[in-house]
Amino acid sequence: MTDPRLDALLHAAPALRLKTDPADLEHYGRDWTRRWTPAPLAVALPATVEEVQAVVRWANGHGIAVVPSGGRTGLSGGAVAAHGELVLSLERMNQALDFNAVDRTLTVQAGMPLEAVHNAARKHGLVYPVDFAARGSCSIGGNIATNAGGIRVIRYGNTREWIAGLKLVTGTGELLELNRGLIKNSSGYDLRHLVIASEGTLGIVVEATLRLTDPPPPTNVMLLALPSFDVLMEVFGAFRARLQLEAFEFFTDRALHHVLAHGAQKPFDDVHPYYVVTEFAIGDEAKEAAAMAAFEDCMEHGWVSDGVISQSDAQAAQLWRLREGITEALARYKPYKNDVSVRISAMPAFLAETQALLGQAYPHFDVVWFGHIGDGNLHINVLKPDDVGDADFVVQCEQVTKLLAEALKRHQGSISAEHGIGLVKKGYLESTRSAEEIAVMRGIKQVLDPNGLMNPGKLFDT
Amino acid sequence: MTDPRLDALLHAAPALRLKTDPADLEHYGRDWTRRWTPAPLAVALPATVEEVQAVVRWANGHGIAVVPSGGRTGLSGGAVAAHGELVLSLERMNQALDFNAVDRTLTVQAGMPLEAVHNAARKHGLVYPVDFAARGSCSIGGNIATNAGGIRVIRYGNTREWIAGLKLVTGTGELLELNRGLIKNSSGYDLRHLVIASEGTLGIVVEATLRLTDPPPPTNVMLLALPSFDVLMEVFGAFRARLQLEAFEFFTDRALHHVLAHGAQKPFDDVHPYYVVTEFAIGDEAKEAAAMAAFEDCMEHGWVSDGVISQSDAQAAQLWRLREGITEALARYKPYKNDVSVRISAMPAFLAETQALLGQAYPHFDVVWFGHIGDGNLHINVLKPDDVGDADFVVQCEQVTKLLAEALKRHQGSISAEHGIGLVKKGYLESTRSAEEIAVMRGIKQVLDPNGLMNPGKLFDT
Repeated sequence: MTDPRLDALLHAAPALRLKTDPADLEHYGRDWTRRWTPAPLAVALPATVEEVQAVVRWANGHGIAVVPSGGRTGLSGGAVAAHGELVLSLERMNQALDFNAVDRTLTVQAGMPLEAVHNAARKHGLVYPVDFAARGSCSIGGNIATNAGGIRVIRYGNTREWIAGLKLVTGTGELLELNRGLIKNSSGYDLRHLVIASEGTLGIVVEATLRLTDPPPPTNVMLLALPSFDVLMEVFGAFRARLQLEAFEFFTDRALHHVLAHGAQKPFDDVHPYYVVTEFAIGDEAKEAAAMAAFEDCMEHGWVSDGVISQSDAQAAQLWRLREGITEALARYKPYKNDVSVRISAMPAFLAETQALLGQAYPHFDVVWFGHIGDGNLHINVLKPDDVGDADFVVQCEQVTKLLAEALKRHQGSISAEHGIGLVKKGYLESTRSAEEIAVMRGIKQVLDPNGLMNPGKLFDT
Repeated sequence: MTDPRLDALLHAAPALRLKTDPADLEHYGRDWTRRWTPAPLAVALPATVEEVQAVVRWANGHGIAVVPSGGRTGLSGGAVAAHGELVLSLERMNQALDFNAVDRTLTVQAGMPLEAVHNAARKHGLVYPVDFAARGSCSIGGNIATNAGGIRVIRYGNTREWIAGLKLVTGTGELLELNRGLIKNSSGYDLRHLVIASEGTLGIVVEATLRLTDPPPPTNVMLLALPSFDVLMEVFGAFRARLQLEAFEFFTDRALHHVLAHGAQKPFDDVHPYYVVTEFAIGDEAKEAAAMAAFEDCMEHGWVSDGVISQSDAQAAQLWRLREGITEALARYKPYKNDVSVRISAMPAFLAETQALLGQAYPHFDVVWFGHIGDGNLHINVLKPDDVGDADFVVQCEQVTKLLAEALKRHQGSISAEHGIGLVKKGYLESTRSAEEIAVMRGIKQVLDPNGLMNPGKLFDT
């Protein structure tokens, strides 16, 4: 080390692993967004809570910003370090610490990947039900930072619902043990919930106690083809009224096109404009009859043109791949992503308005829609044409996001349903939160991070 | 009005209803605790959000503290006004404002009683599942202020889980519309969750959007007699493993004694030291067989000495009365109440320790236990003997609470599971929350209530 600040850090935490190679700085300095050039000072990889505290205290002593880093699968730039920050990677703190069968909780270090959490829960005959496609890479700490949602929210809620306790190293290096796994605890402000979705701006989550639950009942997966956008909510209503839905996901023909081009298997002979993948509990005749009744009801009304129901786990996985493979299939087109939500009841009007808006705004761009209709959450991916430059493309897309943000404000929606605000949506936060709310958020950050060193510039400017 | 401050208030809000009669001041100046002498300046009964805002702005202008007031069924002194505060009663703001069938939400004014919320939900074929004995008097705003729990937490969680959005008038009179009913919203700090359980210290909740759910399945209620305390967790385990529990409540023979004296019907010929009321989903043969299997398993192990299962709704209500009637039956003894929680897995050790502690501490007092075992929540009621003065009694009980708080600290429990901290538990907050956490709470209050006028002295001293 030649930087005296890093020498001081190693003096404060002699066993701390530090990386300063240019390749490491680039690797750890960014997330799945590719809009910023990584330029961190260094990457610290602590192995203990005490080392995390030492890093934060050192950062305060030297006025150095800290960017917490998990699996860096974020889509909002929340883990980008482009201004000489210290990246604090939790990747070495990735172990399960405790399983409690009576409490049905799993206590893990924040760097544990989501999939490893799934596996650890399953080993004990239980499940951690939050799930989404990035499961192999994303970390539970990152999930907490954005209150990650995913494909099972309609049944199990967001990450927030499954956090029984967490440990936070604050912006001053203090360790707070929040809620400690209690089910009932009415002892003042629930700082645990304040930390969830705070995107690393209040401190660093180092540990979490996760609630687990029983494995889901046996399910079937159904793929439905829809003739138009207008019937989407009708189909949702017909299925929700009759079945316990585990998932209800929608995507467009353009999405299917890209997934098929990426190797998935074609589900229908014909091409249809819209598709739904839904998963629901079965296991007895009444439920299977209810599924068929929902399907037939939709066919009779002309809301559904075709459908297929999984006959095996393998086929269920195949149908799911059509939906879950979308993000990966689009990655090479450097898509500009909108991740928005409204109340379910506001969906039809918002969808109609948005469809018209995007049709006008992007006549020459490939726009791919998909989303979690049952949660009021829509993902809009605009693909970059090869002949448009990266920066130009973002500028053009931002114009449309501005219009979209105005529509969201009218419909009382959110500019980020599950990706978080980070750097990408910072300019649009006021479409979702009032100036007074943002002022309160700034004030709260000041309390937990008085020197403004925890992931600064993310979420809002301080 | 002769007080110029009140004249100024009526000037600012001419239509505001104000009460200053001594009887009103006494009535509105306290909750179900009887330890403090009510002495508010006046009682304001606003009819609109704008009037609430006007009151808060006036309070800031005149440096007058505001005590928000719902049904005043609180057990922690959270709604006591004993120092010239203005009581702001929400009782005129008690209407349902909107029901949305697609979102399955009910938007209500904060003063709406819980039972009225239940009825409004049922009218639409849905339920609001948070429930407890004070349902007829308590208000939804008060439920939010303490994150009220109750008898269905094991199945449905606390109030927090059912709040899709809320409107808060902050300590400076600004109106914040928090989360606005969204299912997914990752746009920064979730101030909604910060407000829930803040006991009126951050502002006044004026409106809430509640999630509703499907009515529960048909259930049976079982009353079990237990030979000893030690087997309680075994019985819980045997039932939880086999059944979907809707409730699992425990009480002692002393509790039954008081409920019977208050008019309830004796369930068994013999006297048993401990009892459990449990409710679980039935509806098919497999589930009924599972219930019998759980019961027989417990009988065979000697964990249960006797039992009765409800054969009708009327009998179910009769069995429930044995548990739900306890608080009312004890009221005339001015009980000193402890409302504590630990993780379920910590229950056996904590119970044993607490039982020994209370046996030593209160050899001459009647101590009545009951609680929500499935949530790790225990209620300990110490009854005041007629020959001990009110103040003496509290002093003696506080000595024991100090020891209990130390035990809770060792077992990482909470000094208040569901009643809140208020005035009653303020001195013990540090048994549950660290000094650093309390400092953060104080800092956050400062952000939302810079002049310290929102329910001051509750939860912590500022």
